[in-house]
Amino acid sequence: MTTHRIEALVDGIFAIAMTLLVLTLTLPAAGKEPTEVYGLLFGQIDKFFNYALSFVLLAIFWVSHHQQFHFIKRTDGKHLWINIFFLMFVALMPFSTSLVGDYSEEPLAEVFFASNILMLGILLVWNWVYATNHHRLVDSSLDPRRIALGKKRGVVTASVAVLAIGLSFVDPRISSFVYLLIPILQRVLEYRNRRMTSAAT
Amino acid sequence: MTTHRIEALVDGIFAIAMTLLVLTLTLPAAGKEPTEVYGLLFGQIDKFFNYALSFVLLAIFWVSHHQQFHFIKRTDGKHLWINIFFLMFVALMPFSTSLVGDYSEEPLAEVFFASNILMLGILLVWNWVYATNHHRLVDSSLDPRRIALGKKRGVVTASVAVLAIGLSFVDPRISSFVYLLIPILQRVLEYRNRRMTSAAT
Amino acid sequence: MTTHRIEALVDGIFAIAMTLLVLTLTLPAAGKEPTEVYGLLFGQIDKFFNYALSFVLLAIFWVSHHQQFHFIKRTDGKHLWINIFFLMFVALMPFSTSLVGDYSEEPLAEVFFASNILMLGILLVWNWVYATNHHRLVDSSLDPRRIALGKKRGVVTASVAVLAIGLSFVDPRISSFVYLLIPILQRVLEYRNRRMTSAAT
Amino acid sequence: MTTHRIEALVDGIFAIAMTLLVLTLTLPAAGKEPTEVYGLLFGQIDKFFNYALSFVLLAIFWVSHHQQFHFIKRTDGKHLWINIFFLMFVALMPFSTSLVGDYSEEPLAEVFFASNILMLGILLVWNWVYATNHHRLVDSSLDPRRIALGKKRGVVTASVAVLAIGLSFVDPRISSFVYLLIPILQRVLEYRNRRMTSAAT
Repeated sequence: MTTHRIEALVDGIFAIAMTLLVLTLTLPAAGKEPTEVYGLLFGQIDKFFNYALSFVLLAIFWVSHHQQFHFIKRTDGKHLWINIFFLMFVALMPFSTSLVGDYSEEPLAEVFFASNILMLGILLVWNWVYATNHHRLVDSSLDPRRIALGKKRGVVTASVAVLAIGLSFVDPRISSFVYLLIPILQRVLEYRNRRMTSAAT
Repeated sequence: MTTHRIEALVDGIFAIAMTLLVLTLTLPAAGKEPTEVYGLLFGQIDKFFNYALSFVLLAIFWVSHHQQFHFIKRTDGKHLWINIFFLMFVALMPFSTSLVGDYSEEPLAEVFFASNILMLGILLVWNWVYATNHHRLVDSSLDPRRIALGKKRGVVTASVAVLAIGLSFVDPRISSFVYLLIPILQRVLEYRNRRMTSAAT
Repeated sequence: MTTHRIEALVDGIFAIAMTLLVLTLTLPAAGKEPTEVYGLLFGQIDKFFNYALSFVLLAIFWVSHHQQFHFIKRTDGKHLWINIFFLMFVALMPFSTSLVGDYSEEPLAEVFFASNILMLGILLVWNWVYATNHHRLVDSSLDPRRIALGKKRGVVTASVAVLAIGLSFVDPRISSFVYLLIPILQRVLEYRNRRMTSAAT
Repeated sequence: MTTHRIEALVDGIFAIAMTLLVLTLTLPAAGKEPTEVYGLLFGQIDKFFNYALSFVLLAIFWVSHHQQFHFIKRTDGKHLWINIFFLMFVALMPFSTSLVGDYSEEPLAEVFFASNILMLGILLVWNWVYATNHHRLVDSSLDPRRIALGKKRGVVTASVAVLAIGLSFVDPRISSFVYLLIPILQRVLEYRNRRMTSAAT
């Protein structure tokens, strides 16, 4: 099986999971008073934040997954199943987002959400390690530094999720903001990588 | 990353957001009397109008986005994220449509819907300005008049959204009809552009 | 714009609308007695029939649309909008199916469903007539008999929908079965066409 | 019609059905006490298991379907409709999963779920038998042993479903675990096939 087909399923499931996030926002119940629209919108500012956060996190995972498949040239049975379990946790995100939106002050809800992100991070690293180990599914000419960068990217995401789990028990309300570290750290990684590459030449 | 992958995500999210609009229509509650079907259908004519309006507006944005990517040949990190934020507001449309359908007489609901359209317009202009600035992501031979036309298209959409926000405070019921200006003004732009092009040759 | 992009949107919206049909089936309410599963399933046999009927009808429209685009080589602004309005009624199908499932004895519900099919039939014929008129968007060598066959296909669907609207006022329960005429008549058309083609050679 | 288009619809419907499975998980009702999050999550461990089970089963069918289309080079009218009925039961999976999650102790619910899997297995075998009979839609050089392997794969799935139906009447709670036989037996088939192939050379 070529990687083309798994990529079509990946793009489809990401697109649907990202769009279904909108269902986590509370819609007005039938027969409500018109004046309640103010309360409806301003009362769920947390949920709008969670919607945007999960959308951006899924987009980050989608981009990282694509960056991996830019180098992965073939697939095999085990690799296919790592990806399918990865997708299972992508499809779970609307549920995790809804849970954390309804129970933003409950540690357990935050732990559930963070565990979902953690599983995505672990499976993403596993996907890359499996594919690049002995250049199993990538070109044999692929630069080892690029392989190392791909690993670090997934480790960063998984580490931030572990940090979020820890913080959930301290203050569930701030643990959400921890995820903003992911894009920042990814940037740092990329910047350092570019400097190392230019220093080498 | 080539533009092919972002286009697949864009097509997916547009297709899903456009189809999820159907969930904004009120379905009969279980155990209702058969005779209530008349009331159910004729009582939500507003919602059918909103369904059609949002479907057409999303289609206009989809077409405009495609027209841009016809000329955009490559992408980079920042460009990718402009598109992801654009998609975040595409995926929000079923919520905004539902809100405006339930509270069609409330200025705040109309302002929320218009702001959604405004963000789509702004991000579409930004996408084009970023891509064409110094021909960053387009062919260096791309006609400056075409670049200007692309900007005007997005500005038209954003301006109509601003007009709709203003009108929401005057009469929320008429502000929806303002959006019909978008296809009309796009037509005028295209017609004027074609005349200019033929006058130049 | 090439036809490739519109086809991607078409495939996406058809796939989603066909899958969302499943939401028209009644799920058990929380806290129901286990023994109610018999009633839940056998009490909604009508809905299962409607689910299968709408799925097959959408599949027929998807196949017909593809058969048209096999010959349509380019698109223009007006053609694009015929297709977008076609998709608007594709996306409406889960609502129509749900309505007819909840009010299977109400003429108005059947008329609404039949009108949805009628609009799909009309837009499909319009799409083909517009594309083939003076060979506007098809190869100039396209056989006139094939053009005529394409028109007849759409007219068959629209005619059956008109028949269903009429029958809705006589007996809403039987009007659903009328749609089974669509695949039968399509078959007859194809068979007659094949005989004509072989007689000509 | 080439197989490319049917594959696009297949990928779309699988992606959506797999993502909609998340809707079978119970979301917190508005206005619930924060402390109820523990009960909400641990009380639906069955549903999480069902979510994962159905996701994996759909993935197995998606992989099997792709393996078939790797060899199927063309399609015809009847073949197209076998696939459309296959997709109808793919799209039904979120309903079956939800049913079995709500009534895990009811034989009828388990029978319904198993029948859904059985239909998928039967249609998958039919698809392969129809396509390979007299090499109708496959290359004439396709190895008969590969054709036989494809049949066995579908028969395994269908047989496990029949076993699950039987067990539903003995103990509905254990019948779900029977499906774990599917990936195990698929593995055995593949292993035996590889040994036979290497023995032949």
